[in-house]
Amino acid sequence: MIVVIRPHTSPDKIDEVIQEVAALGYTPAPIHGVNQSVVAAIGDENTHPNLESLLALPQVERVLRVQKRYRLASRETHPDGSIVEAGSIPIGGRAFTIMAGPCSVENEKQLLTTAEAVREGGATFLRGGAYKPRTSPYEFQGLGPEGLRLLAKAKELTGLRIITEVLSEHDVERVAEVADILQIGARNSQNFQLLIAASKSGRPVLVKRGFSQRIEEWLLSAEYVLAHGNPKVLLCERGIRTFETYTRNTLDLSAVAIAKLESHLPVIVDPSQGCGRAELVVTLCCGAVAVGADGLLVEVHPHPAEALSDGQQQLDFTGFRNLIKQITPFLEAANRSLQTLPTQK
Amino acid sequence: MIVVIRPHTSPDKIDEVIQEVAALGYTPAPIHGVNQSVVAAIGDENTHPNLESLLALPQVERVLRVQKRYRLASRETHPDGSIVEAGSIPIGGRAFTIMAGPCSVENEKQLLTTAEAVREGGATFLRGGAYKPRTSPYEFQGLGPEGLRLLAKAKELTGLRIITEVLSEHDVERVAEVADILQIGARNSQNFQLLIAASKSGRPVLVKRGFSQRIEEWLLSAEYVLAHGNPKVLLCERGIRTFETYTRNTLDLSAVAIAKLESHLPVIVDPSQGCGRAELVVTLCCGAVAVGADGLLVEVHPHPAEALSDGQQQLDFTGFRNLIKQITPFLEAANRSLQTLPTQK
Amino acid sequence: MIVVIRPHTSPDKIDEVIQEVAALGYTPAPIHGVNQSVVAAIGDENTHPNLESLLALPQVERVLRVQKRYRLASRETHPDGSIVEAGSIPIGGRAFTIMAGPCSVENEKQLLTTAEAVREGGATFLRGGAYKPRTSPYEFQGLGPEGLRLLAKAKELTGLRIITEVLSEHDVERVAEVADILQIGARNSQNFQLLIAASKSGRPVLVKRGFSQRIEEWLLSAEYVLAHGNPKVLLCERGIRTFETYTRNTLDLSAVAIAKLESHLPVIVDPSQGCGRAELVVTLCCGAVAVGADGLLVEVHPHPAEALSDGQQQLDFTGFRNLIKQITPFLEAANRSLQTLPTQK
Amino acid sequence: MIVVIRPHTSPDKIDEVIQEVAALGYTPAPIHGVNQSVVAAIGDENTHPNLESLLALPQVERVLRVQKRYRLASRETHPDGSIVEAGSIPIGGRAFTIMAGPCSVENEKQLLTTAEAVREGGATFLRGGAYKPRTSPYEFQGLGPEGLRLLAKAKELTGLRIITEVLSEHDVERVAEVADILQIGARNSQNFQLLIAASKSGRPVLVKRGFSQRIEEWLLSAEYVLAHGNPKVLLCERGIRTFETYTRNTLDLSAVAIAKLESHLPVIVDPSQGCGRAELVVTLCCGAVAVGADGLLVEVHPHPAEALSDGQQQLDFTGFRNLIKQITPFLEAANRSLQTLPTQK
Repeated sequence: MIVVIRPHTSPDKIDEVIQEVAALGYTPAPIHGVNQSVVAAIGDENTHPNLESLLALPQVERVLRVQKRYRLASRETHPDGSIVEAGSIPIGGRAFTIMAGPCSVENEKQLLTTAEAVREGGATFLRGGAYKPRTSPYEFQGLGPEGLRLLAKAKELTGLRIITEVLSEHDVERVAEVADILQIGARNSQNFQLLIAASKSGRPVLVKRGFSQRIEEWLLSAEYVLAHGNPKVLLCERGIRTFETYTRNTLDLSAVAIAKLESHLPVIVDPSQGCGRAELVVTLCCGAVAVGADGLLVEVHPHPAEALSDGQQQLDFTGFRNLIKQITPFLEAANRSLQTLPTQK
Repeated sequence: MIVVIRPHTSPDKIDEVIQEVAALGYTPAPIHGVNQSVVAAIGDENTHPNLESLLALPQVERVLRVQKRYRLASRETHPDGSIVEAGSIPIGGRAFTIMAGPCSVENEKQLLTTAEAVREGGATFLRGGAYKPRTSPYEFQGLGPEGLRLLAKAKELTGLRIITEVLSEHDVERVAEVADILQIGARNSQNFQLLIAASKSGRPVLVKRGFSQRIEEWLLSAEYVLAHGNPKVLLCERGIRTFETYTRNTLDLSAVAIAKLESHLPVIVDPSQGCGRAELVVTLCCGAVAVGADGLLVEVHPHPAEALSDGQQQLDFTGFRNLIKQITPFLEAANRSLQTLPTQK
Repeated sequence: MIVVIRPHTSPDKIDEVIQEVAALGYTPAPIHGVNQSVVAAIGDENTHPNLESLLALPQVERVLRVQKRYRLASRETHPDGSIVEAGSIPIGGRAFTIMAGPCSVENEKQLLTTAEAVREGGATFLRGGAYKPRTSPYEFQGLGPEGLRLLAKAKELTGLRIITEVLSEHDVERVAEVADILQIGARNSQNFQLLIAASKSGRPVLVKRGFSQRIEEWLLSAEYVLAHGNPKVLLCERGIRTFETYTRNTLDLSAVAIAKLESHLPVIVDPSQGCGRAELVVTLCCGAVAVGADGLLVEVHPHPAEALSDGQQQLDFTGFRNLIKQITPFLEAANRSLQTLPTQK
Repeated sequence: MIVVIRPHTSPDKIDEVIQEVAALGYTPAPIHGVNQSVVAAIGDENTHPNLESLLALPQVERVLRVQKRYRLASRETHPDGSIVEAGSIPIGGRAFTIMAGPCSVENEKQLLTTAEAVREGGATFLRGGAYKPRTSPYEFQGLGPEGLRLLAKAKELTGLRIITEVLSEHDVERVAEVADILQIGARNSQNFQLLIAASKSGRPVLVKRGFSQRIEEWLLSAEYVLAHGNPKVLLCERGIRTFETYTRNTLDLSAVAIAKLESHLPVIVDPSQGCGRAELVVTLCCGAVAVGADGLLVEVHPHPAEALSDGQQQLDFTGFRNLIKQITPFLEAANRSLQTLPTQK
């Protein structure tokens, strides 16, 4: 770390900083500049105490980190991209993964017709919320265990693998029985206890970026899963909170490019949360392919206008077929191809 | 709700919207404007389905809510401010509450000397983290149950009431045995399962605003606690995420004024998370008093430069005494006075 | 507009609102809901006074606009995309436009070698700042008129058309003599006097989105140019300000998709302002093509590490050739092709 | 500056950085850490080139500035707060300045009755826009020169000093004839040519913070005025753009505290832009006093509901009297008193 001393600090006050740096286990290396001095603290920042506490000293102006805080998630430790296998399907290679299905599991007919439609269209994973995090306590909270039962049935009938959200540490085991991928939603992106519990399930974990998570923090949330022993982690960009009000969130495609550069983990894009028009969803999916995403997580519903949650952002079956058609030339340009389901389930 | 139809929509397409509105249980009231039509949907928005799903229809341009989404937290339902009793101490009346103590419970000596100092200075609640949510899995995560034991000891010795954070549904019961107030941190502000579990404990719950929570969403997080049967809720503003990099977060004092206007719940301000200098903490506390806060949650440490977490934002004992001295005239201006501990514990 | 009345408002207070709405020239249409009343104000919002002033009445809770505020920039008025001709080169059609060159014009050799290189690589426009808006008064402010002279010379020698920024109303005429497109930078995106002066020059005007401009506001800045009689407007997305600190700005590719949906104006993407690594620039350009951009504005410098401004974001000549190579398959996927210079200059 | 080298960089690539640092005029001081090396560049950052261009080298990970970029605006160069005299009235001392008046000058009666009311109430400056920056070209743009004439008349009749906005370099001279303070609005906060022109007028200049200006950038905008020879600068916080939608902007009172810490310049708070309710304006003004503001810029209108611009945020005369009454005890707590007009005009 670099400790920046305020201008006009007396030598003995600089010495005080040098001694604190040494007391905390670093080797101090002072550099006296023209206007200001800095004290470089030599030592591994990830195993020594954070020197930011030195800001409590009045002569310290700033403390700058040098090292990155994530290790296991970093591409430096793993120069090739990772391939994460989920339900025996590899995610992150040349094949591009489509995860599609309704926002919420509403009933058997809705789920099964959707599963059939998205499998036909090219999906290999069925998404669908059994447990729904809703901003208001008065909104539909999902079918719970009955939703899980329906997901298991859809898997049985179609061969699609399942991705679904887990909201509570109490439910991790139950959800992991059905899900091939556990989804951690944006609202729980820094619910570290849930990340740890999901890690320990052994199931692949998809970590959505929080509404206002910096990329470093998002990778550190992934690092929680990795550091607790589970190497199967997928990142998911789903839109950040900005000043813009045209859309609910601002899908941050540049973050996909950065995540691919900084990390070896596969990156999935969920375009549905941010926009209220099918036309936008399709265009953003083309963009996602072009910036290097490894797959899409997209909401599809038989009759969006009557959905129990977030109908405005769900594609109908025609819209889903059109999506696949539109992204196909961009997949070719990116030298990728649509993933297919293994012939036997 | 108001459903805005796109310009140049044909009458039969407007009828389609009218019928969907009726099918969802509202009474439709179309209004034909000069350039555009709108369909007002008459009915209680909080018990009928959300019409935003109608955005799935191409002729629908926007859907505007009319009603507020929170009810129990709203000042409309409770025009006088609420007083929340915690450990037999009333919060939210004329008396102004100081909650002070270290960021993390580190060891017995640290905690007990700090408890003594803040009680002398004017605090009625001791704060201190036994369970710490840390952005990186490699940072100090708190002493856990041992931290709780030390908090209980400090309470026993000083009479101070205890506020401490709970991170996991699994720990709610254990923390509630010691804590007079359960703190839900910013990272868990939309961890609805934790809010529900905290509600059910029956203990007062302090709900911190999330990094990027709109005020409406913050009040809806409080609504989760209220709707699950626990009326003892405190709101806490602790800084939001903005583009500014001078401070870690931007303490939003205007949100305090708005929360007092919109809600009857007491509002506490935590100035420590946002700023790295004692001087700023003191000034922001004066501001908090002036905009109507009911109390402060402030970090105090015997030797901030060596704190195990966030030393830069913690006041030392001299700094704490100075804080109390500085806010005193502003408390008088606000016609408030420092709360005192009941003589018998 | 829709005027939302607070719950529990007495009929005579609702009447007061109805009368104010009528006094301001609208036809009021009150709707009495279950919990709240609203007063719809029938009339053209763009020629009547803004009813937001009614919020000054205590019984008014909110005022909601129905109509869009931009007209000439709107796709509704012009369903096909516009083609803007600049220096006899059409922008916005099937051909994809590359505008490239240094951040600042530094000297003759730097500019001419860069011009030659970008022309060879596939650019049709040369960019280069003669007047530079710099955050600090102590930073290099550009060569001014001498920079314009060098741009004119580069145009003469290479046939490339010129795009350059204008900072001051005083300079519009002088810049318009040399430039085929006047660039209005992000810092001046709501400098309406400059927009008006640029409009009156008759030259095509490229309007960059401000750091924190909502899309509606960006289109209204374009509307200033259009409404003052100049139909030749290009939009340019160049990154918005968010909480993210990995990059200087967050390039908002979703705004490109939205701008294409809402407006008929061509949209150019400037990826250079946001990122400090050539690798990212290239990936984001592929994304820009996929979301529907009509061209790129990209910084190229012979030796970026020694640039007088913003070297970190400039491509060298090899980087530029690689950029063109990388975007080519995505242009094909988007059914577009690189624009070429007319054979006679 | 500190140049951070990527991990695993070979010694000759580190040498390349060292040589570039030396070539740019700094003395390089390499420090070899446990995991990564850094090269400290010794030299005055404000007179040497910005090393961020070195990010163009692939082995450079980050470049960190050490020094602050503003000098004349910095409190380090001027430890006591400045007092800026405008129209012979000192701003920034113990006396607290009230600047009040309508958003826009609409007509003689409106302006003169308001001027009379705010003078009675305790204002020393009359505010009122003759030139209005409006987001849409179709909105009321101000009376222009006729507005200036009315301001001059109001000054003549009441003795109030005048503050009014200037939008164009062309108008600086004309506005400076009437105005005691030139106001640079948020949309022009980085219109550097206008800042320079305002500086050269010799009149005091009030620099509003841009919608998304970091505090450092705001102080650098002030630095433009100072560096061009005019020491009479006032800072003005007026609300920043965040994700919150309850208010139009988020008034950032913490920025006032920081500006007072970092700079010697007086700070004025404009609470009107952010909020749509008189109640909030008053509370935020109390907060402004408590965090150290030197004055208020507040909108007052005889009949806000019929104002030609922004009626929702303007106080009526009763509201203004109430504001003064409410802030009075907080002024006492801050050891300040309301400024009074000198007895002879």
